[in-house]
Formats: sequence, structure tokens, C-alpha cells
Amino acid sequence: MIIVMTTQATEEDVQHVIQRLQRDGLDGQINRGAERVVIGLIGTGFPGDYQEHIEMLPEVESVTRITKPYKLCSRDFKHADTVIDVSGVHIGGGSDFVVMAGPCSVETREQINETARVVADGGARLLRGGAFKPRTSPYSFQGLGEEGLEYLAEARRATGLPVITEVMEPDEVDVVERYADVLQIGTRNMQNFPLLRRVGQTRKPVMLKRGMSATIEEWLQASEYILAEGNKDVMLCERGIRTFEPMMRNTLDLAVVPMLRRLTHLPVIVDPSHGTGAWYLVTPMALAAAAAGADGIIVEVHPDPDNAWSDGPQALTPKNFNAMMRSLEAVVAAIGRRVAAPVAAVV
Amino acid sequence: MIIVMTTQATEEDVQHVIQRLQRDGLDGQINRGAERVVIGLIGTGFPGDYQEHIEMLPEVESVTRITKPYKLCSRDFKHADTVIDVSGVHIGGGSDFVVMAGPCSVETREQINETARVVADGGARLLRGGAFKPRTSPYSFQGLGEEGLEYLAEARRATGLPVITEVMEPDEVDVVERYADVLQIGTRNMQNFPLLRRVGQTRKPVMLKRGMSATIEEWLQASEYILAEGNKDVMLCERGIRTFEPMMRNTLDLAVVPMLRRLTHLPVIVDPSHGTGAWYLVTPMALAAAAAGADGIIVEVHPDPDNAWSDGPQALTPKNFNAMMRSLEAVVAAIGRRVAAPVAAVV
Amino acid sequence: MIIVMTTQATEEDVQHVIQRLQRDGLDGQINRGAERVVIGLIGTGFPGDYQEHIEMLPEVESVTRITKPYKLCSRDFKHADTVIDVSGVHIGGGSDFVVMAGPCSVETREQINETARVVADGGARLLRGGAFKPRTSPYSFQGLGEEGLEYLAEARRATGLPVITEVMEPDEVDVVERYADVLQIGTRNMQNFPLLRRVGQTRKPVMLKRGMSATIEEWLQASEYILAEGNKDVMLCERGIRTFEPMMRNTLDLAVVPMLRRLTHLPVIVDPSHGTGAWYLVTPMALAAAAAGADGIIVEVHPDPDNAWSDGPQALTPKNFNAMMRSLEAVVAAIGRRVAAPVAAVV
Amino acid sequence: MIIVMTTQATEEDVQHVIQRLQRDGLDGQINRGAERVVIGLIGTGFPGDYQEHIEMLPEVESVTRITKPYKLCSRDFKHADTVIDVSGVHIGGGSDFVVMAGPCSVETREQINETARVVADGGARLLRGGAFKPRTSPYSFQGLGEEGLEYLAEARRATGLPVITEVMEPDEVDVVERYADVLQIGTRNMQNFPLLRRVGQTRKPVMLKRGMSATIEEWLQASEYILAEGNKDVMLCERGIRTFEPMMRNTLDLAVVPMLRRLTHLPVIVDPSHGTGAWYLVTPMALAAAAAGADGIIVEVHPDPDNAWSDGPQALTPKNFNAMMRSLEAVVAAIGRRVAAPVAAVV
Repeated sequence: MIIVMTTQATEEDVQHVIQRLQRDGLDGQINRGAERVVIGLIGTGFPGDYQEHIEMLPEVESVTRITKPYKLCSRDFKHADTVIDVSGVHIGGGSDFVVMAGPCSVETREQINETARVVADGGARLLRGGAFKPRTSPYSFQGLGEEGLEYLAEARRATGLPVITEVMEPDEVDVVERYADVLQIGTRNMQNFPLLRRVGQTRKPVMLKRGMSATIEEWLQASEYILAEGNKDVMLCERGIRTFEPMMRNTLDLAVVPMLRRLTHLPVIVDPSHGTGAWYLVTPMALAAAAAGADGIIVEVHPDPDNAWSDGPQALTPKNFNAMMRSLEAVVAAIGRRVAAPVAAVV
Repeated sequence: MIIVMTTQATEEDVQHVIQRLQRDGLDGQINRGAERVVIGLIGTGFPGDYQEHIEMLPEVESVTRITKPYKLCSRDFKHADTVIDVSGVHIGGGSDFVVMAGPCSVETREQINETARVVADGGARLLRGGAFKPRTSPYSFQGLGEEGLEYLAEARRATGLPVITEVMEPDEVDVVERYADVLQIGTRNMQNFPLLRRVGQTRKPVMLKRGMSATIEEWLQASEYILAEGNKDVMLCERGIRTFEPMMRNTLDLAVVPMLRRLTHLPVIVDPSHGTGAWYLVTPMALAAAAAGADGIIVEVHPDPDNAWSDGPQALTPKNFNAMMRSLEAVVAAIGRRVAAPVAAVV
Repeated sequence: MIIVMTTQATEEDVQHVIQRLQRDGLDGQINRGAERVVIGLIGTGFPGDYQEHIEMLPEVESVTRITKPYKLCSRDFKHADTVIDVSGVHIGGGSDFVVMAGPCSVETREQINETARVVADGGARLLRGGAFKPRTSPYSFQGLGEEGLEYLAEARRATGLPVITEVMEPDEVDVVERYADVLQIGTRNMQNFPLLRRVGQTRKPVMLKRGMSATIEEWLQASEYILAEGNKDVMLCERGIRTFEPMMRNTLDLAVVPMLRRLTHLPVIVDPSHGTGAWYLVTPMALAAAAAGADGIIVEVHPDPDNAWSDGPQALTPKNFNAMMRSLEAVVAAIGRRVAAPVAAVV
Repeated sequence: MIIVMTTQATEEDVQHVIQRLQRDGLDGQINRGAERVVIGLIGTGFPGDYQEHIEMLPEVESVTRITKPYKLCSRDFKHADTVIDVSGVHIGGGSDFVVMAGPCSVETREQINETARVVADGGARLLRGGAFKPRTSPYSFQGLGEEGLEYLAEARRATGLPVITEVMEPDEVDVVERYADVLQIGTRNMQNFPLLRRVGQTRKPVMLKRGMSATIEEWLQASEYILAEGNKDVMLCERGIRTFEPMMRNTLDLAVVPMLRRLTHLPVIVDPSHGTGAWYLVTPMALAAAAAGADGIIVEVHPDPDNAWSDGPQALTPKNFNAMMRSLEAVVAAIGRRVAAPVAAVV
């Protein structure tokens, strides 16, 4: 921690800071410059928000934290990539590129079964589908709930694809966990701390979507809530951030992919469907995500997008999905990885 | 709903849209222009996200919603201002300006009692204080929980000030409701829909803070979740939005005050403490909020900010709080309102 | 400047940094902590972007600048408020609150004369009006040019109000300077450095509007371009920043008013017309700006807004302008200032 | 244009709008719904900002523009891709992927010659380098001016690479045009309309960088200023937008690449150096830009980044540049394009 005094600070002000540090068992080193004094405090023996206390002292101009405000997710803490095994599909680690696909919402048994077959045949390795849906309006379709989870489980039995689905509140975790292979935390819940703690207590892998206006540091700190409860299988999902641009639903921030690679050992997934909001942008952004080094993508596919119950405009048709997969294979190969191959089918 | 066809749309494309509308029991009116066809669909007999379905049809360029995506909170639905009665304090309605004050976190019995006395004497009408705290890092102080609620209740008995405090998850509502007079939904939970529904089922007034990157429409739709459950006592609280400016914690968006006044009958409160993050900006922004027409403010006060357990840098000292109250009285009077007077004390 | 080494940095890496500093005639102080080394460099004998060079050295994790990247505009450099005298109207200094008003664009001789009379009678002390207009589309009305300046000068003769008008490029400065009393730099030109230098060479006061996505530091550095050329009469104008909110044209950032007060001695003006884009938000935001401590406002007034050639939706009618002035007088008085009184009229 | 009346609008209000349209020679079609009236106005015989006038009429709730606010740059106006020929290098058209590379600033004859050789050998087809530099602070290095242009011309003679360089003000265009093959308009000047008009009058291709907070529509309208003057050779360059994320200099918005492809026939270039601000993010983002379908990239390369006079942290070393080129070749091939091959060298 670096404490910069104002140019007006007196010796008394400096000693006031030093005494406060000493009271808290800390040892500050004083650097006296021509214009001002700077006090260095190196170490980690103080709480995460200790900075705030020092900022308040008289004639302190600024306090800069040096150490990162997260630990377990950091590459400093664990150097090797985390590889998450979801029923034989390996996410993370730099070799396999994993495609997760399916509809935004589970609508009917037929719809989810048909979509599952399409995406399994096309090369997806996980099936996505929402049963509990967070909707901006209370008057929109809110998901089928447990009935939707049953349909997902049925589609898994038919295709062998493990299932990823969203959980919205702590009390739902029990039921979702019974059906799902991966628990998804949606963008609106990235800082729903009771929910993060609760999924941290399960043994299921968690995909933590970035909050729509979350900084990278906040996102990593949110992952820390899950990791701190003992669940090591966390993957991060970039799904676009909110900016001033009205023409796209979100702004997909692909530079976080290589940035996260430096900061954390956790796998990084990209969602080009929510990240853009328009089906015709999904394939280019899926290819770009692969080229940027993502460990996989999660995309929306619907057999009949113009009758989808939610998010139809961003869903790929089966035909477009298959075309995307062929392009992806080429791009993924160009950067020395491969699209994850099917595991031994259950069918 | 206005459906604009592309300039390439054929007669067949237009009929395809018309048939889809008819299939869904709706009636579109066709306007043929020199360059393109526009189809108007007036009415409300379609679901909130019906727009999405039509956007997907071939050669549809854009679909514009005309009706607002919320209802119960709208001034079209209820013209007169909602006035919320909290133990005799009236919030909303254009006459009283209500000051809510207290520490960020409840820390100790002494701290909350001392602060309550200070703010009651200074002219606050509600006591704020967090017992359950949403913290960015799992390693920061997370609040005293129910013990904190007990201290708050004790401070209420001593000062007569009703209590407002945050609730973070549906399962906490029961306990918080037993102690609190107003339930606060924090910025990170503005779209925690299960929580919104749950507080909608209580009979306690709710203060709904704006999500840090929420649009006004999303915020009003979030209030709709609470109102739709039958709880009519909802107030909105502007607490700053996230922008690119690094020098302030948030950007306080005061123009929402008169904008909300037009759109909704719900009272509007401003939080200049979180809205700026710096104690020296709190008083000017409190005055500005009053001048802009807010129904009240909620501010952080701490007897000893530099030893506060959270958010010290934005807390007012008792002395600064009293100075702010005197300035507020003058500004509030200048716009023809008055700072809410104490109700008959319980003491 | 504080240089933080990574936890992997070797003694050799540290010496590499020290040698680089020495080569550049600087002296770094080494602090050795348990986990890492931090090097302090106190002083100002290095160029503004020296930080960048050090960031590049091996195993340097971060470099933090301590000194501010501006000087002449800083309150550290000049403590007393700058007061700008525009033909007897005093802007800045904490006493007078100055209202500048007029149409967005000068349209006709009659329109500007009528508007000037209205705003002079209502209590404005400067007349605004655009003759050279920066328009997003090349197909929109681009201003009357020098003809507009002549009409403005005529209106000044009739009313005694000094004139503020925008200048868009270095070559226009000569002609605009002949007619105007204050030169306005618009939001799109806040970082048009050749233009800033050029107006810095005039002896006319300059109002520098904030860039629509400019940080406070960038804005102050832009003012530094003008000051560094010798023109000391610079005022800053907050006119709203660009955010994600679609319902308002801009987000008026009023907290910059007290923040700038701390950082700079330059006067601060607020533009609630561009800052909101809607006439019905202008009066509440004008009052809020006054309450926040601004030195004045600049507002758009048009005798017939629905026939205005530009920005009609945000213009006040004469009747609304007069109502705003009456409210302003009360709020300005409440904070111990006064609305600037007319100087001896030329009429 | 679609005019939506409020639910309170009377028949008189509706007729008032109709009469205004008729006065302006326009013909509105009235649609009467259950709750409100909507008036459609189809055609293009009204000025770009006509919408504003109608929005002001009594009881008009909203006005929605249907036609796009730009024309010459639109794919509706010209379907085929614009291909710009720069001394035999073809930019645009979907086949060649063009790499432009060089230092941020021209510093010395040796530095630019060495860099030119490195990037020419590595496969770049244009040489970039700034001689006139827009710098946030007046105290930073401002570029060598014409001396820098001479060094660039010398490097062109030595390597055969055409030169792209920035021009900052109308009066500089003459001199820059004498030396440069492509004129670059920087992010801060995207809406410097006098400058746009002036480069529109040259016969040199122009690269128009996106303003750091410009919407796609504003960017296209800015290109329209150049095209409307008769210069058809305009390419657009995405260089990152300003968001709330502090960890990266900008947020590179790659989804604009496929979005622009739909909207405009102009070539699209990506700048991953300014777009991220960190050399270690440049290669992944260059690959992602290629995968997203960009027509080329512009990157910063410096023989000795840690002694660069500006923007060192984002410059690639020659070694990293060569590694990037090899990866790019593979990714570009994977999407069916090729990295533009050298034209017959002039040497």
C-alpha cells in the first residue's frame, strides 16, 4: 500500500499516519521527496478494505493498493490452468475448445429434444437451456421451472450431452443441482453473494457470467466467493458489457480473454449470443473468441427462432449452427487447438 | 408496435408478417410508402416480448414498441403521487423532504446508538444502517446480521426513528421484516427477481435502489415485480451509475429525479453518499438533489469516519451532517417544500 | 512515481530499473517488502509520460503517478478563484451566479433580437447563440456563419449583453473573435489541440465544454493547452456525459462542480439544456446546478421552440425561462450567493 | 417517421400534427388504435432533423425515424464492397487482409527506417507512423511535424511501403498530403467537421478512426462528411471505445466488424494496439479481428519499445510482430482469405 501525503502535510500529519499504522500492528516506511512525503506499507497483514481507513486521515492525498484483492483465483496462487472435467468433457487447459449450445429457454419436451439432437450431431459437447429465467419484466415468460429441468435430463439421456442451466436463488440450488451438470450464474447475479456462497458449497462445476457492468477485478472477486467455499471448478463467461452503443444488445469484450489468461488459472468461455443480441453477429464473434484464445463458447440454437419464447433474434438455426461449427474447426486448428471431440456416447 | 420492412421486402414478405399477426389474433395496418412498407399494430393484446418474434421474420428491418413495458408504477396508471407513511413520516407527495441518515454498517451497540442520537437531533426522520452487507470481496466485513438488527431496534426505541435496512436474499426477509420499518433492496439486487417478489409479499415499504448500470426502464420494470405482488409502498433511490470517470465512485444522475416524476407516481430518494463516494461531495449533491425535486435523501453519518468498518471515506461527521441540514433547510424552502419535521417522539 | 515490481522480480530486475532511472538523472528509493520490492521516485524532473517507459521494463507490475498531470489550472498552483470579467459581468469567485441564455442557433435577425430582448429582460447576463454549428450529419443546418455573428453583435448593441458563441477551427478564430466576447469550445473539440492553442493566443475569455466522454483529468489537461499559451481566462462547462441511458440525451454530471472546485481555480458553468436534451428537465437541473455550487449556467431559449432550426426539444420558451429565473433567484439566495445583476445597460 | 400520440391526445392535437406536416408539404397517414393514435409519414422529403420539430408538438409522445441518417456510405446506396487501391495494395473486397505497421511516433530517421525494414520484411503492406501527434497533455512530445513526414517518405523509398499518417487540422492537410499515401483521422477528430470536409476534398484515401465514445451511426455520419465532398476512398478503423473497465486502455469492440459489413460498403480496419493499450493483448486481438472478418489491422511496432517516445507499452517488438504475422497467416487462411502479399517492390 502506498500512501501519498498532500504537499501541505506537516510532520505531525505524517506521524499521525505512522502511529495509526503502528496501532494496527503495521510498519510504514517513509520516503521524503522534494515536494511531499510518501509512505510505503508492504505486506498483506491488513484487511481488504484497510485502504479506506487510511484515505480518511488528514492530509492523505491518495492510497494505492499494490496487492490484488483476490487470491484463490489468481495465477500467482495456482500457476497451472484449471481443467474442469464435466462427464469426460475437459474445459480449460489450452487444448480442447468446447462448444455448449441449445435454446435460450426450455419450452417443450419436443423443442429441447430436437435441439439437443441437432447440436449433438453438429459437434456441441454440452447442452444449454434455461428452466428458471431471469426476465426484465414480470409479465414475460419466466421459464418452465422443474418441468424444464426434467426435459433437459431426458435430452441428456438421449444424446449423452451434459447439461448446463441457470440457478437464480439459493433455495433453487438443491433442485437444479439434481438435474444439472454445470450450474450457471447469470449476469444479474454475479454479485448475488448468498447465491455465490451456496453454489460454492455444491460439488458441481459453476459457470460465472460477468456482470453487465462488472470490472474484471469485481468478477474475479465474485469467483473468489465460490472458490472460498471449497468449490474449485469455476469457469468464467464473458457475455458482453453495457456501453453507450444502442445498435447492439451488449458490447462483447473479447480482450478479457487474454487478459484473464494472465490473471487467473480459471477457464474462460465466451457467449456471443447474449454478447451481441443478433444471430448474424454470432458466428463472426464465435470465431473471434476462438482466435482470441477462449476455452469454449456457449451459443443459442433454436429449431425455429421466429417462434422462440425468448431471445429468438439471437438464436442460430440448425443450418447456421452447422455452418458455424465448420468455420470454428478451421479457426481453432489455426491456433493449434481442436474442437472438443464427442465423448463415448451414452446413446 | 411499428414494423418497418426493408426496402427489399416483397409483397410476399409483407403478407408473411400479416399472416403471423393474424395467427396470433392481431390486426396489422399496412402503410405503403414510396420506398418501403410500414405495418402498424396498435393495442396491448400481446406479450411484452412479442416484438422479438416479429423482428425475426424475413425482411423486417426494425420493430418499435409504442407502449411502455411497465404499468402499475406508471403515472398513466395512477396519476396522484404515492405517499408512503412510515410510522407517521410521509415520503412522497411534494411537500415534505425526508432525511434518512446513519452509518453504512451497524458496528457496535454504542456506535449505532450514538449515531442515531446525532442524526435524530440533527433532523433526520429515519435511521439507516446495514446489518447484512453485500461486499465485493469475501474477505471484507460482511455485517453483524441479526445482532445488528437488534441494535437498530434498540436505537429506534431510544430515538423514535423508524429504521431502514438492507435485505439481500429471500430467506432473510422474515428476519429483517421483524426489525425494520423499510426494507432496502441494494443496487446489486435490483434485478434479483426472487428477492423482489418476496419483498412484494410483505406489508413493509420497500426502497429499491437503482442498479449501477440500470436504465430507467429496467428500474421501473424491477419496481413492477414488487408492485405486482401487491405491495404498493415502493420508493426509488438513485445512488449513482457506473461511468468511465475514475475520480468518483459513481456518477450521480440527478436528472432522473424530474424524469421519474413524469413517468411514475412513486417517491424518489437520492443517495449522495454512494452516489459520489467522497464525504466532501455529499453536501453539495444533497442540496442539488433537493433542488432537483427529490422527495428525500439517504446519507451516511459516522461518529468517527476514519475508524468506520466500511465506507468511511463517504461518511459525514456529526458536525458536517448538522451543517448540511442547515443548508438543506434553506434550499428546500427555496423550492417551496420543507424538511420533514419530527413526529411525536416515542422516547 | 511508485514502481511496483512483480513477486517474481529478481535483484537483477530491480537493478535494471534503478539503472534506467539513473541514466535519466533520477534517483529511486528501494523499499523491500516480504513479498516484493517497491521503488519510489519522488519529484517532478521527468516528462509527463515517463511512466510509460518504466512500465515496459521487465518484471515491473505497475507504475503509479503521484503528481497531477496538469499544473496551471490547479488550485495547488493558484489558490484563489479565477474571476473572469466579461464587460463588467464577473464569472467565478463565489458570489455572482451568471445566467447565459439564447437560442441554439442564430436563425434570423428577428429571432436573435427577439430572444436577446427576452433573456435580457428575464435576467440573463450573456447572450448565447451558434453561428458556426457542429452537426452530426452533413445534411443538417450548419449555421449562418459570419452573417450570424453580425446578428449577434447587433443584438448586443440593442441589449448590452456580451455574446458567447462557438468557434470550430483555428482559421475561424479571427472572425469569431471580432464579434464575440467569449469564445466557446464545443464538446467535440475539447481535444482539438490546434484549436485550443489558437484560442490560447487570443485575449478573449474561453468557455471549454467537457468532451462527452472526457475524464476530469483530460478536461483539465485540455484547459492547460489554453492556459499554457498565456490566456488565463478559461471557464469550464459541464454539459453532460455519454452513458448507457437511452432516455436522456446525456447524463448531466453535477458532482463535477464541487470536485472541480477542489482541483482548480477556474470557474465552472453548467449547461442543463445539452446536459439533458429535454426542456422539461432544464429548470430542475438549473436549480440543482446552482445548489451544487456552479458559477453559472448556459441555457437555450427560443421564442418558438417547435419551429427552431436545431435542438428545439431542449429550448425553454420565454415563459418557462422567466419561471426558471424566479426559482433560481430563490435557490441561489439559499446558498448565500446572488444571481448576477445587470451591468449598466448600453441601451 | 412514426409519430406516436399520447393517450391523452385529442382529435385537435392530432389535426395540429397533420396540419404541420401539410404546411411542410408532407402527408401523414393516421392509424387509430384502441388507446392512441399513431401517424405514419413515409418518405424522405424532409430534412434530417425534422423529427425534432414534430417531437415538440403538443401531446406527441415519441417520434421514430425509419430511414437511416446516412446515405453515401450505406450498402443500400452502393451494394458492392468499396476496394481502395493504395499503390497496388487493395483494401476491402473480402479477399486480401492488409497489415499496416510501424511506430506510434516517428522519432528519428534511424528509428523509422529500421522499423520500416522490420515490418516490410515481416509482411506489412503499409507503414504507419505519427508526425503530428494529438497528446492529452501539452507537456508531452507533440511529434516531429514535417521533419517526421520526410523520414516517412524516405522509409517508403527504401521499402516500397506506402505511408499512412495522421492529419490533425485543415491547414495541415496540404503538407501531409504531399508525403502520405493515406490520411488518418484520429479518434479525437472523428467529429472535427471542418477537417473531415477538407480531407474529403483531397484525392488521397482516408482512414477514419472511430471516436472513443462514438456510436456506429455517428461514425457513419462522419464518413458521410468525407464522401459528400467527393472522396470515395474512405476506410473505417475500430480502435476501442471508452468503457468503465480500468484495466485496459480501451474496450475493443470487434462486433462492429460484422455489423459494419451489413451497413456499409466501406472497408473496416482494426487497431488492436490502441484498442487494448497492452502489447501482450495485441496478437490475440489481431487474430480475433481477422476471424471476425476485418479487412486489415494497424499495429504499433517499435525496435525498442521501452525507449519509445510515446505509447511504448502497446508496441510489439520485431520478434513479437513476426510471431503475430505467422499466426495471422494461419487464421486468415482458415476463414478463406489471405494476408496481402507484397506488391512489386520499388526498391
